[in-house]
Amino acid sequence: MGEVAANIEALRAAVAEAVAAGAQLVVAPELATSGYVFADGEEARAAALRRDDPRWEAITADLPDGVVVVVGYAEDAGDRVFNTAAVLTRSGRLGDYRKSHLWGEESRFFAPGDAAGAVFDTPVGRLGVAVCYDNEFPEVPRRLALAGAEVLALPVNWPLVDRPAGERAPETIQAMAAARSSRLATVIADRHGSERGVAWTGGTAIIDDDGWIAAAAAAGGAGPVVATLRLRHPGDKSLPPHNDLFRDRRPDLYT
Amino acid sequence: MGEVAANIEALRAAVAEAVAAGAQLVVAPELATSGYVFADGEEARAAALRRDDPRWEAITADLPDGVVVVVGYAEDAGDRVFNTAAVLTRSGRLGDYRKSHLWGEESRFFAPGDAAGAVFDTPVGRLGVAVCYDNEFPEVPRRLALAGAEVLALPVNWPLVDRPAGERAPETIQAMAAARSSRLATVIADRHGSERGVAWTGGTAIIDDDGWIAAAAAAGGAGPVVATLRLRHPGDKSLPPHNDLFRDRRPDLYT
Repeated sequence: MGEVAANIEALRAAVAEAVAAGAQLVVAPELATSGYVFADGEEARAAALRRDDPRWEAITADLPDGVVVVVGYAEDAGDRVFNTAAVLTRSGRLGDYRKSHLWGEESRFFAPGDAAGAVFDTPVGRLGVAVCYDNEFPEVPRRLALAGAEVLALPVNWPLVDRPAGERAPETIQAMAAARSSRLATVIADRHGSERGVAWTGGTAIIDDDGWIAAAAAAGGAGPVVATLRLRHPGDKSLPPHNDLFRDRRPDLYT
Repeated sequence: MGEVAANIEALRAAVAEAVAAGAQLVVAPELATSGYVFADGEEARAAALRRDDPRWEAITADLPDGVVVVVGYAEDAGDRVFNTAAVLTRSGRLGDYRKSHLWGEESRFFAPGDAAGAVFDTPVGRLGVAVCYDNEFPEVPRRLALAGAEVLALPVNWPLVDRPAGERAPETIQAMAAARSSRLATVIADRHGSERGVAWTGGTAIIDDDGWIAAAAAAGGAGPVVATLRLRHPGDKSLPPHNDLFRDRRPDLYT
């Protein structure tokens, strides 16, 4: 919580571990550089990074070519602070997405973004990015898939909520359904353990484009979690012999 | 398959059994009066019912006041046949919804409807109705909930598909997610057994407005399945203390 230098070093080491395991796309949790449970806006601002902060170099300097890293962070944007996800490669920053659906007390610390998820062209394909509560609005993964996203990177911080015995976290179920509805593989990176009395779900998981869990964190929730996703041809939403998940839509009727 | 008189008698008996168990809303599967696996359009037409067919009386005549029954049927609409769900009470027919997302070979037998689900005012509240594949388009349950549906009646015929060991049917996961996203309790009535070589999922289940399974058919899939749903105040989508599932939407960003 608030220990930015230590968090960046932990990120650097975790990304290196994932890359050593063969990962081409690495996703870290929401607000991974800062912590989540801020006491006030000043604390959030103190832990915020500018996009051009030289400390980003520590995470990207040793990346192999073609590897993409998505990291949630508190973004210092001058007059405002955002809950943002950075899309990074060694050769350059591909972009940033600012969370637009703010949960809980986040509006005390962050301004809302002005897009409902975003899509970036990356070395691993067209990459959708959303942050945590964004994905509980089914419109978000849907619109990213319709915009051509092949994989969704989803940094989250899921506070642990009650669920019936034997059930997955509800947010996981929502992500599985969204993945299947739009054939959108989804890489979830969650916080684990607890922070200032908030227990986390530890829901880190990789969901394939049929909506099934390809790999998930063991009990406790620690990463890294690594899986190989075999994606269909980009944009192929066909359900042979008669159907297609996108062509069967009736957008004229969705008003 | 095609034995309309026998199917209506089976429906009458099943509805009476559910009512005797205390049900106020009874949902039967898609195409419950006709069978599903038609060989050709002539067979579908031969098993179709007009809305004013006197045989509907057999299902409704003995209903207690206030009970609502939703039945999937092949609708003879003169020049066209639709895959329709009827919303019935003893004192009158409240309406019909024609499936608009046709799956598999259905377009050989049925014309598509011109609405993506529908909402009816009934003695059990504002009732959303969709049919099977409709609900795999997240836009459908979402728009019904936004239109005020408190409960979704979902007649389905889910052909059994592969799934990982220990997982629920994918359509169930999609319905759970949709229910939670919009706080929309969902009553699924599925076919079971098999028909002309098509094995059915037997996914009959009642999902509460948090997206959890309140009751589900036992192995084999036979009904009736009965549960008491405790619904929140109609239209209450609040997530205290800071959030609201609907007010937190950013529809301006969903284009």
